Amino acid sequence: MIPGKQPGKNKINDIKMKMRKVISFVSLLLCVATVSAQQALWGGQDIVSPEIHPDHTVTFRFHAPKASSVQITGDFLPAQQVDTPQGTFDAPGVADLSKGADGLWTYTTPAPLAPELYSYSFLVDELKVTDPNNVYLIRDVASLTNVFLIDGGRADLYKVNAVPHGTVVRRWYFSPTLDKERRLTIYTPPGYEQSSDSYSVLYLLHGMGGDEEAWIALGRTAQILDNLIARGEARPTIVVMTNGNVYQEAAPGESTLGFYKPTMQLPQTMEGSMEESFPDVVRFVDSNYRTVAEKKGRAIAGLSMGGYHSLHISKEYPDMFDYIGLFSAAIFPGEDVESPVYDNFEQKLQTQFDQDPQLYWIAIGKTDFLYQANVDYRKILDEKGYKYIYFESEEGHIWKNWRIYLTEFVPLLFR
Amino acid sequence: MIPGKQPGKNKINDIKMKMRKVISFVSLLLCVATVSAQQALWGGQDIVSPEIHPDHTVTFRFHAPKASSVQITGDFLPAQQVDTPQGTFDAPGVADLSKGADGLWTYTTPAPLAPELYSYSFLVDELKVTDPNNVYLIRDVASLTNVFLIDGGRADLYKVNAVPHGTVVRRWYFSPTLDKERRLTIYTPPGYEQSSDSYSVLYLLHGMGGDEEAWIALGRTAQILDNLIARGEARPTIVVMTNGNVYQEAAPGESTLGFYKPTMQLPQTMEGSMEESFPDVVRFVDSNYRTVAEKKGRAIAGLSMGGYHSLHISKEYPDMFDYIGLFSAAIFPGEDVESPVYDNFEQKLQTQFDQDPQLYWIAIGKTDFLYQANVDYRKILDEKGYKYIYFESEEGHIWKNWRIYLTEFVPLLFR
Repeated sequence: MIPGKQPGKNKINDIKMKMRKVISFVSLLLCVATVSAQQALWGGQDIVSPEIHPDHTVTFRFHAPKASSVQITGDFLPAQQVDTPQGTFDAPGVADLSKGADGLWTYTTPAPLAPELYSYSFLVDELKVTDPNNVYLIRDVASLTNVFLIDGGRADLYKVNAVPHGTVVRRWYFSPTLDKERRLTIYTPPGYEQSSDSYSVLYLLHGMGGDEEAWIALGRTAQILDNLIARGEARPTIVVMTNGNVYQEAAPGESTLGFYKPTMQLPQTMEGSMEESFPDVVRFVDSNYRTVAEKKGRAIAGLSMGGYHSLHISKEYPDMFDYIGLFSAAIFPGEDVESPVYDNFEQKLQTQFDQDPQLYWIAIGKTDFLYQANVDYRKILDEKGYKYIYFESEEGHIWKNWRIYLTEFVPLLFR
Repeated sequence: MIPGKQPGKNKINDIKMKMRKVISFVSLLLCVATVSAQQALWGGQDIVSPEIHPDHTVTFRFHAPKASSVQITGDFLPAQQVDTPQGTFDAPGVADLSKGADGLWTYTTPAPLAPELYSYSFLVDELKVTDPNNVYLIRDVASLTNVFLIDGGRADLYKVNAVPHGTVVRRWYFSPTLDKERRLTIYTPPGYEQSSDSYSVLYLLHGMGGDEEAWIALGRTAQILDNLIARGEARPTIVVMTNGNVYQEAAPGESTLGFYKPTMQLPQTMEGSMEESFPDVVRFVDSNYRTVAEKKGRAIAGLSMGGYHSLHISKEYPDMFDYIGLFSAAIFPGEDVESPVYDNFEQKLQTQFDQDPQLYWIAIGKTDFLYQANVDYRKILDEKGYKYIYFESEEGHIWKNWRIYLTEFVPLLFR
């Protein structure tokens, strides 16, 4: 009924037979998959896009026989300056694909691309669409963009390499201050589970529109930490990625609100609740992980709105963090945001710096719309003689910079 | 320099001022985001798609002024029968959207939809694209499809509800048999971290083309477990979601292979290596989690190829699992796949059933292409007098059924 395997006399025939049999199952399954998904999953549409060539030029392909125009836009193209009433900003460039006889449109970069994690979309008759041949997308607020990576240089830190891998956890905690169950993303470094040591903790905060998925997805935090630790350039560190929208339980799609359309701004992000409730997170982490549960074992850093949060949380709780990182921080010296965190601002800042934090690190890009606010803030620190380290990069308010800042900041921690 | 907050005499004026100031920051940030992403994130494009109406009809919207045809395809539409040389299969239906004067295409379902997690795509001038107003997509092998959920009935088990949430972990283990670091997705139930109890473990296996992300994403495992546990319908259980492609370290994009195009089939999936190496996973889980590390505390279940794996792993190690679930299992009585797992098949099956597994559960859909193979397999079990429970559903080889099977299977475990 169910015959056992009959060892054949001829091993090659055996293997051929095995291949034929496996293929017959695959064909059938493929047929079902093809019909039900209405597209070839295997053996059918063999378009590769993007194709990264050995010289690091890249070819993009898009099959659209009926389209009259296919373009590509992405941060690998030279930026265009766009004038708006609020000022001049960089926008990603656009390039035209050429149509082949078979309805396959292609574009190859004229020159090799520098190592980086890039994002792109197609514009088909002006309609923005994702690349159907690239399943790697990252969500930023309400938009999804395809990504690809050119390796080498710093971008090697963004790759999964053959190094020990940490653990990434999505976990819920209760915030008594907010009276809410909330979701965290936590990275524990390789070896954490087998060790009995205590580990230092970096609290890593996202910007406006982000959530607890932002740093792990767009920020490549797990890969950056795995790689820096493997190179001996970072101490094994726990990284706690919070949700800075205190109004939310969790990232869009991960809460009781279901699958709603994410928006850029949520209430209560910059009026003091994040700062007030932050000790709930620290208490949860210290009582659920083997941490160095004191100032010297804690860092806090964030981008944009998360930089604002990091500035104020570290100031409100001057005994809590020895390492502070402000990445393109939304610093508004009393002009744009009103919050109780500005009460006795100068006095609290004095208290924080009187206690000599190990590191106060400020980074910003030259074209960032927050550049001047950061210049002004550094002027204050300079006048007071408060020590900080300043890192200035090219470009502006973009994830490329925040990944760079993370790779620069983490090696300075807990030394 | 940095003025502290000046408590105003008029609280309403204070709040107005606060709103104005926060909005000025948001406007600026929004402007940057809009320019750099070339699309409105907030306040701009306010298309809602899908819009689920209170009566559970659904409207889909797509803005494409230049398109001459926009259609929608998805599993919420009545299936169409498609004839192929391999037989007749169900394919998702297609419906036309109507064009409005503003270039906004719409389609509203003629009747309310039954509770379910549905998937869909648009066809714009026959080009398959995702919905730019819906960021919720799930990857299945090499295709990405938008999803939405109609609540009620069983589909309430697929939602994030206001119940205690378990923890979801992505973690790497070393397989000595395969000499490879490999990635696992592990769900631990609410309360696991605070408890000192030992927990039973369900090993949950994906099908061909899947990986360790399949059950957590398409299968809604975390939501189903959270909800069943909260209702008292399931024991708090650890769920270990393995990668059944022994050739792989990890899901596409999560391994050293980088961002490559996933394929339906990988080598070594059905020739015995998965079965041979499976005890490595069990050993890792038993030594890293507080488990009931014996037969009565272990279940194994899988869909399609994962059903094949579950059948054979449970038979190869008859002392390991007391609960076995075959979901639309790829059962090939000696005809399609040749593997050492068929050596002494009947004798090993006899050994397994002689030890009285607590539950041997077989589920399949009426139109599944594997239906007859399951009928034949049950005939064998019947002839031998081996006890099993059989669950037959409508439809075929689809995730809708595998979610249903999980909700039926889990309540039967560890009682």
